Amino acid sequence: MTSRSVDEHAGIVRQLLSRALTPGSETVPVPDALGRVLAEDVRAPIDLPVFRNSQMDGYAVDAASLHEVPVSLPVTATVAAGDAGPDRLAPGTAVKIMTGAPVPVGADCVVPVEDTDTDGGVVRIHAARRPGEFVRDRGSDVTAGTLLLAAGAALTARHLAMLAAVGLAEVPVLRRPRFAVIATGAELVPPGSSLGPGQIFESNSVALAASVRANGGDAVLVGHSTDVPDHFRELLERAVAAADVVLTSGGVSMGDFEVVREVLTPLGGWFGHVAMQPGGPQGLTTVDGVPVLSFPGNPVSTLISFEVFARGELRRCAGLAPVPTDRATLTVPAHSPPGKRQFLRGRRVTDGVTLESGPGSHLVAALARADVLLDIPEDVTTMQAGDDVRVWEL
Amino acid sequence: MTSRSVDEHAGIVRQLLSRALTPGSETVPVPDALGRVLAEDVRAPIDLPVFRNSQMDGYAVDAASLHEVPVSLPVTATVAAGDAGPDRLAPGTAVKIMTGAPVPVGADCVVPVEDTDTDGGVVRIHAARRPGEFVRDRGSDVTAGTLLLAAGAALTARHLAMLAAVGLAEVPVLRRPRFAVIATGAELVPPGSSLGPGQIFESNSVALAASVRANGGDAVLVGHSTDVPDHFRELLERAVAAADVVLTSGGVSMGDFEVVREVLTPLGGWFGHVAMQPGGPQGLTTVDGVPVLSFPGNPVSTLISFEVFARGELRRCAGLAPVPTDRATLTVPAHSPPGKRQFLRGRRVTDGVTLESGPGSHLVAALARADVLLDIPEDVTTMQAGDDVRVWEL
Repeated sequence: MTSRSVDEHAGIVRQLLSRALTPGSETVPVPDALGRVLAEDVRAPIDLPVFRNSQMDGYAVDAASLHEVPVSLPVTATVAAGDAGPDRLAPGTAVKIMTGAPVPVGADCVVPVEDTDTDGGVVRIHAARRPGEFVRDRGSDVTAGTLLLAAGAALTARHLAMLAAVGLAEVPVLRRPRFAVIATGAELVPPGSSLGPGQIFESNSVALAASVRANGGDAVLVGHSTDVPDHFRELLERAVAAADVVLTSGGVSMGDFEVVREVLTPLGGWFGHVAMQPGGPQGLTTVDGVPVLSFPGNPVSTLISFEVFARGELRRCAGLAPVPTDRATLTVPAHSPPGKRQFLRGRRVTDGVTLESGPGSHLVAALARADVLLDIPEDVTTMQAGDDVRVWEL
Repeated sequence: MTSRSVDEHAGIVRQLLSRALTPGSETVPVPDALGRVLAEDVRAPIDLPVFRNSQMDGYAVDAASLHEVPVSLPVTATVAAGDAGPDRLAPGTAVKIMTGAPVPVGADCVVPVEDTDTDGGVVRIHAARRPGEFVRDRGSDVTAGTLLLAAGAALTARHLAMLAAVGLAEVPVLRRPRFAVIATGAELVPPGSSLGPGQIFESNSVALAASVRANGGDAVLVGHSTDVPDHFRELLERAVAAADVVLTSGGVSMGDFEVVREVLTPLGGWFGHVAMQPGGPQGLTTVDGVPVLSFPGNPVSTLISFEVFARGELRRCAGLAPVPTDRATLTVPAHSPPGKRQFLRGRRVTDGVTLESGPGSHLVAALARADVLLDIPEDVTTMQAGDDVRVWEL
């Protein structure tokens, strides 16, 4: 069985995924675009405000008419929001105006209704105003052609408000990469059913699908396969047709019933050992141009394989920030087998990071409690409390 | 027109919302529960592992048989993952075993296949093993009855993996509060259409719906209303029937065509002025037991009203952390009208926060660029660069 280092296998996987996961774009309605990543720069198609309008309910006048206050002016028209309004204000007159309504040519300020009284068709104005007061000029927020948002922006509610305000009904966003998931193993039964002797609940497809979604992808749950090759082949065919990348769990190690290895090796798949714990047995195949990443079946091995080999490229293609890695102080001793890169489950504490459990690849409850992976290099077998360790954010 | 301080109005709104938004729970399939908030504590219904099983592909033996190695033992059976396996291992024999398969009574360790050779029905073992090696004991990860996750946990992929592993197909999560949204204004046309004179694009319903979703709620877009009271009444009726809370925008101020105020005042609504900028004109009504929060129609006023009056209670009911507020150093001077609490749009910079725009309530592009609101108290009119200011995270 061939053997590779983590970096070597990760590099080969990355190269395959980077070819398969070319960022594509799709157009979605603006109301559905919350959290999506913009695929192209967006420029304003119009000025905002699109016309000069009133900031208040009141009277549009020429400030020159207010040299001496109080002053009484005839009201020649009323303009509500949504009205075209009169073309022009005659000198020495006023137009009653609502918030958001267009300010007629000839008026240069708005007197708020609170500073006025009316008597029939005449308004009495108590306070003088400067030109421009309570008037919003065309283009004072945005001028047509301005860059509103750059490609790569993760869209918030405020971004969507702005896109709608300039009249955009749709927006180009990055397509979510599609990952199909197949769990394998004769011992697996679906959660919610009852266990027979030797059986366990199938959790890897839920775990991988949720991990894909949490990192900007769409997950296709193809189902779980028994150890019968034809069953696996059938699911594989559906998975390859449906997705950019296929993830499998189980069936890759040294046993007699390794359905994934058995089916994929003749298709040119590489199956071997990666010098890591957990997650040692790994497979990698290209089927009809679609990369098939084959992870071991222990729940912890599967999830850590996803973190180490798939998450980074998925996030890159989805336009998300890289997986954060960091260094932290170990608060307890840690041990690691020689020649293997060890990913221990850890948790942040006040003064650094602590271990959440032992190295066992079946400890799913401990993984659920962890918030970091501690990355112990191949050539390190013992670390002391106080040592500096590399951590991956989960 | 009556007037209230921000704190006074916020207190009244909070009281109404806290009665309307009682956290409820619903049961969802585990695969759909990513990001949902757990409504109840979850305890393990079973031990995990549910039976003693092999960590490796190899041979299950009694460690006592390996006193002297190499040693040859007859292989009496093969047990694969998913098999019940033999009841008991006879002394001085071995059972071939796959990863995850049950270890028979009488065996206390597993010898990895790498440390063996076979010849017919006999295995030759090269290396001694201690009792317990490569055997995962029943309950070594989780024992039945253990608290797996406490109510209030926001569910991650790793949590879902654990819930599936203990056999849970469904999980109780907090119901998402439902907010219906109605935008009003005769001047509004949907994005994607063309503007007539005096018309603007309707952006408030998108903005409010996305804000609701971003804070753990479900949004129901009821549509946008003209200034015709019967039209608004019809949308209001649908909104009240569909949601826990209704948000309206526009139609609340001092103009002649204020459809929201006109329809809701006779139903017992309060409409008045809150001493804040932007967002001064506000309304609050209870219709058939459903709170109707009426925000002003300027896009910035609407979104800031949501932040100030609705976001906190929505997040509380959705089980999310409170809106983060903080203090920061102002890097530029700021001005605020006397007697009004001012929410200026700001942005974090290296040495504090800066202003993103002037106070105009129509500046949606500036709001889109902002990442904080600067909260300037009623009694402050001028702040200097270097002053300490309260900020709300957007």
